[in-house]
Amino acid sequence: MVRAAVMPAPHAPIEIREYPLPELERGSILLRTIMSEVCGTDVHLREGHLGGVPYPIIPGHINVGEIVDLRGELCDVSGQPLSQGHVVTFLDVHGTCGRCWYCTVAHASTRCPNRRVYGITYSADDGLLGGWSEMIYLRPGVKVLPLAPGVTPERFMGAGCGLPTALHAVERASIQLGDAVVVQGSGPVGLSAAILAQLKGATQVIVIGGPEARLAEAKRIGADTVIDIGVHGPKERVGMVRELCEGRGPDVTIEASGNPEAVPEGLAMTRDAGTYVIVGQYTDNGSVAINPHLDINQKHLDIRGTWGIDFGHMWRSMRVLAKHGPRYEWERFISRHYALDEAQQALDDVAQLAVVKAVIEPNSSH
Amino acid sequence: MVRAAVMPAPHAPIEIREYPLPELERGSILLRTIMSEVCGTDVHLREGHLGGVPYPIIPGHINVGEIVDLRGELCDVSGQPLSQGHVVTFLDVHGTCGRCWYCTVAHASTRCPNRRVYGITYSADDGLLGGWSEMIYLRPGVKVLPLAPGVTPERFMGAGCGLPTALHAVERASIQLGDAVVVQGSGPVGLSAAILAQLKGATQVIVIGGPEARLAEAKRIGADTVIDIGVHGPKERVGMVRELCEGRGPDVTIEASGNPEAVPEGLAMTRDAGTYVIVGQYTDNGSVAINPHLDINQKHLDIRGTWGIDFGHMWRSMRVLAKHGPRYEWERFISRHYALDEAQQALDDVAQLAVVKAVIEPNSSH
Amino acid sequence: MVRAAVMPAPHAPIEIREYPLPELERGSILLRTIMSEVCGTDVHLREGHLGGVPYPIIPGHINVGEIVDLRGELCDVSGQPLSQGHVVTFLDVHGTCGRCWYCTVAHASTRCPNRRVYGITYSADDGLLGGWSEMIYLRPGVKVLPLAPGVTPERFMGAGCGLPTALHAVERASIQLGDAVVVQGSGPVGLSAAILAQLKGATQVIVIGGPEARLAEAKRIGADTVIDIGVHGPKERVGMVRELCEGRGPDVTIEASGNPEAVPEGLAMTRDAGTYVIVGQYTDNGSVAINPHLDINQKHLDIRGTWGIDFGHMWRSMRVLAKHGPRYEWERFISRHYALDEAQQALDDVAQLAVVKAVIEPNSSH
Amino acid sequence: MVRAAVMPAPHAPIEIREYPLPELERGSILLRTIMSEVCGTDVHLREGHLGGVPYPIIPGHINVGEIVDLRGELCDVSGQPLSQGHVVTFLDVHGTCGRCWYCTVAHASTRCPNRRVYGITYSADDGLLGGWSEMIYLRPGVKVLPLAPGVTPERFMGAGCGLPTALHAVERASIQLGDAVVVQGSGPVGLSAAILAQLKGATQVIVIGGPEARLAEAKRIGADTVIDIGVHGPKERVGMVRELCEGRGPDVTIEASGNPEAVPEGLAMTRDAGTYVIVGQYTDNGSVAINPHLDINQKHLDIRGTWGIDFGHMWRSMRVLAKHGPRYEWERFISRHYALDEAQQALDDVAQLAVVKAVIEPNSSH
Repeated sequence: MVRAAVMPAPHAPIEIREYPLPELERGSILLRTIMSEVCGTDVHLREGHLGGVPYPIIPGHINVGEIVDLRGELCDVSGQPLSQGHVVTFLDVHGTCGRCWYCTVAHASTRCPNRRVYGITYSADDGLLGGWSEMIYLRPGVKVLPLAPGVTPERFMGAGCGLPTALHAVERASIQLGDAVVVQGSGPVGLSAAILAQLKGATQVIVIGGPEARLAEAKRIGADTVIDIGVHGPKERVGMVRELCEGRGPDVTIEASGNPEAVPEGLAMTRDAGTYVIVGQYTDNGSVAINPHLDINQKHLDIRGTWGIDFGHMWRSMRVLAKHGPRYEWERFISRHYALDEAQQALDDVAQLAVVKAVIEPNSSH
Repeated sequence: MVRAAVMPAPHAPIEIREYPLPELERGSILLRTIMSEVCGTDVHLREGHLGGVPYPIIPGHINVGEIVDLRGELCDVSGQPLSQGHVVTFLDVHGTCGRCWYCTVAHASTRCPNRRVYGITYSADDGLLGGWSEMIYLRPGVKVLPLAPGVTPERFMGAGCGLPTALHAVERASIQLGDAVVVQGSGPVGLSAAILAQLKGATQVIVIGGPEARLAEAKRIGADTVIDIGVHGPKERVGMVRELCEGRGPDVTIEASGNPEAVPEGLAMTRDAGTYVIVGQYTDNGSVAINPHLDINQKHLDIRGTWGIDFGHMWRSMRVLAKHGPRYEWERFISRHYALDEAQQALDDVAQLAVVKAVIEPNSSH
Repeated sequence: MVRAAVMPAPHAPIEIREYPLPELERGSILLRTIMSEVCGTDVHLREGHLGGVPYPIIPGHINVGEIVDLRGELCDVSGQPLSQGHVVTFLDVHGTCGRCWYCTVAHASTRCPNRRVYGITYSADDGLLGGWSEMIYLRPGVKVLPLAPGVTPERFMGAGCGLPTALHAVERASIQLGDAVVVQGSGPVGLSAAILAQLKGATQVIVIGGPEARLAEAKRIGADTVIDIGVHGPKERVGMVRELCEGRGPDVTIEASGNPEAVPEGLAMTRDAGTYVIVGQYTDNGSVAINPHLDINQKHLDIRGTWGIDFGHMWRSMRVLAKHGPRYEWERFISRHYALDEAQQALDDVAQLAVVKAVIEPNSSH
Repeated sequence: MVRAAVMPAPHAPIEIREYPLPELERGSILLRTIMSEVCGTDVHLREGHLGGVPYPIIPGHINVGEIVDLRGELCDVSGQPLSQGHVVTFLDVHGTCGRCWYCTVAHASTRCPNRRVYGITYSADDGLLGGWSEMIYLRPGVKVLPLAPGVTPERFMGAGCGLPTALHAVERASIQLGDAVVVQGSGPVGLSAAILAQLKGATQVIVIGGPEARLAEAKRIGADTVIDIGVHGPKERVGMVRELCEGRGPDVTIEASGNPEAVPEGLAMTRDAGTYVIVGQYTDNGSVAINPHLDINQKHLDIRGTWGIDFGHMWRSMRVLAKHGPRYEWERFISRHYALDEAQQALDDVAQLAVVKAVIEPNSSH
């Protein structure tokens, strides 16, 4: 039997349940889970903030595991064979159809209506389709990515879903060599965005966020300035940022906070003809007042919403981790490891921002 | 002496004043005005909505005139000599510096802080620097553009500032062949945007606006569907547009209405991963509630503010007029011509949307 | 039994062969062929110019047919059900994998190494997988597109593969409103490129090609100037084009000729900082001398190779045909219809440029 | 009197000549030269490879100097006042007109036909308009840039014109996070391109060049692999690069070699749907055979010529130097400093690739 931490319904406590080992169909893979992430989305899942979630679910969308069984001759994206013992991750998004209008005409793969997400939109009744479980069942077609040489599970999970999400945002940010970039938010997405902004050519990076432990991480990974939202109010922050950026404001601002109020603040601080990327608004926290004349039209701004990731973002993230892992040591974002039985605690700690990053090790006793 | 219609101060009636003929410095040109536009911005000038306007001013930023005098050997942008008798227009924006950070590093010429605008940011005390005047003085460096063969002053002024403004917006809209485009607003900018969307590859164009005479123009110039805001409310409009666009909504929406409420409506109707261009918010009409999660992030939208025009937009507009003038007959946007003494009436008619486009002929007795 | 025109091997004459009706697997569709194209690629297939072709083959990659049978509940890309009697086309490219590095990371779908092409890379031994046949078997996953209302098979086939190929090229050409565009080549791709350049904002289009019948078509569909390569030599053509384009040359040049010599000529005529799109070099006709300093670096040119099409190009082409079909009447590109038994003659006529476009009607007796 | 090293004519030896101190006009600045570059272009100037050079000239287009006199209240691009004692550089390109078609419509500032270049297209008879001179006269409108805090003249000159030239090339290269980049050429442009590729997101950089001292520099600044053209032939290099890049080849190749033969080699090694930037072909070294089918069309390549720099490239380079100077120590590219009297020797050493970078110190006795 396989033990898994299950979220039975919104607001209900996490339960440990047991499931039989699945039978493998052709093209499928069975992973023994090494680590699974607990991220802000899991808190939203508990709060019932996301629509269409088929509770009960096994959470855990970003995972590392070891292949213990597989059916057929399977390869990774570079054509290398996969076999037992390989340590891999996989894209949580599964079933992007390649046939619908969004896939074939708009080439907007993250808006494909047929996509399903491990740990989020699959029910525990559908199988072992989330990472808070000793085993994960990879359906045929799930996109598998071996950890690159030198990238430990610890380092990969320290980056977690924050890294490819930030990579997608930074890709949409059109950063130029010599740009000043502000990141709003110092959670896992914000911290990785602050790293990637540097790797994409920014020569000045300012992180606005809190609490202190997260800002310390921001400093560690190279932010030139951090601004504590517990100390400085919104208007003051706009003034500080402007002043730090030659009076004009940053060329690019990346919103990774999840707070709607961050949006008008970020628009206000960005320089004329700059770019504002919104990647943090993953759940509906309501509306906010925006002045289209002052905040957008007169400023000649570009604003870019950024939804989801595709396999390319994950593949590129792995390359970044392999090259720059020793420099940024993403594993240091992990504040604490949790056993499977501690999943509830992990979720509470993430909800209270008591940790930068929490990971569950389902097969470790701790 | 030269007669000019002067706006002495916000809310004050237009006055006819007389000025001496200017002495020409090297590089300058004197135009006898053929036609000058009365546009929505002139209404905002009367209402005092724009900051930094050095009243009294001679309004009229888009103009056609005949060269009656010039100093030095002057050429147009293509190197053709300018001489007496040529019928020309000129870019109202003057003094873009080419030296500041916005000009040299950001290449955001419409955000150059040194730019001045004929008819808007020059005082009547500075000279004949607006078109509601029998003569216009072109300072050295003003960018002159001869009307192309076949483009009459009437046709050029029917397009007015709406055409290059719409061209800038459409340039930022990244329309692809086969796209569906919605234009919010049926004033001069909206109507030209509806034309240019077709010329940039859209195969379906929907115009939302009013009153009826403007929607009739929208139909005339090729809109597939018009939606009357006097008949259909905001929510109904979103539903209608979605249904017209295969249930998804348009690929591109161009806001050219000036009403902040149009922005959330436009965001809501645009398809996922589409583009929303804001070009109508030229004055501060306040804030509006926007939901960053639903309206931007989850939709993976691009939003692009569009401020001002540069000479390239005007040059391209002239090419469009020369090629497509006979097909779209922009001159039909002109509802009425006014003598200089009727400037007040022209302004009132524009303010009340009693006309699509109003032009003043300062040297015509009517 | 189903009759098909088969190309047994390079240089061998076309043969009519008979095949049994296929048994349909789940997800497949059987079409009764209405029309199939004979294009320049088919001539190259006969000459053995393409590598990896599994002769014998049933040529015919762009086709229109009527659904006579299908298995399962199948939909088009917009979610509309497909059923018997529907008149449809389909994307000849099949099996783009969605799993390889080119599909998932580079998003370069036309370079997926797993793609197969109806009428080109399938053998007649694999089934009825080409259009020169009374019936066509659509394997599961083939992307089907119903003809839009008002688009007759005749009009669609007049456009043929030239239209989506040209659409891809024009998409890569970044044409701006008011641009001057030169098209090198007046075959089906060149003619559609000349149409689409106009629809994307060009206000001046020059077509260089021959023979006379094709140039007459170019004039008919709106080219401002045509230049006959039988009359004017390469150097003269460069001079003529420059002069027609204000001495600078065109903003964009689209190569659709298939002749390597066209490339240095096209580079030479394009204006500095312009764009040169290569879409005609579909087979290896050898090398040509290019001067990287004069032709590329000093000119600050963009050069863009354009390979293949994806479903989006076909979908957008259908929208263009539905909107602009009455204006451009693509069906007039069809010089002659051929019965299945006349396939050899059709191929010879295309090879000798005796026709603009040839189509085979496999179920028509003629 | 001011001493300057003058190039009297092609192939003639450098001469030291004396000139009177210039009288300053309003808006002008006089610099005491600290360092001036000797670059490959100076060798081409001696060989008479460039057209339109008004010999005799004072070479030296990239320079650092101290302001010793100025006329009027002058500011840098950020609005900071300039005054005596400031250590500055300036953009060698002067007189980009802001009025011609290339400036105003194409926004292709480096193709403005009115631009003049210090040290290249100004004659010694026009004044002290090159850096191989004790003093440099900055005409009104020359764009001045103070060295950023921490950027020494030594470090700035080590980067020289290679850095902004490479920055322009890398800007056009559209590098994405995780890309593999090949740089052809290990001179000053190639080395800076190898640095900037890393700073723009490449996680793998391969430099192809020679001789050994330059490849040692390439390794020092972070190239993952260097390939010595003295050891490996062209075909072998293509194979090596492909193998290093997962069998596909690099995503981006940047040509910075000046050898036309590098172009087909670079096209061949770049992956399908990749990008090839040509920045090294600054003088006419003849033509080369290119296969448009194999090298461009079937590969679906983007090729981008890159001419000249504008002030933005220089401004961004200064930001990069200020941030990353300690990491890359550009000053180490300087192999030797030369007194003014040794200008001939400096030129010879550059011509023979005996140095990576040579600088002249006109006011130092050595």
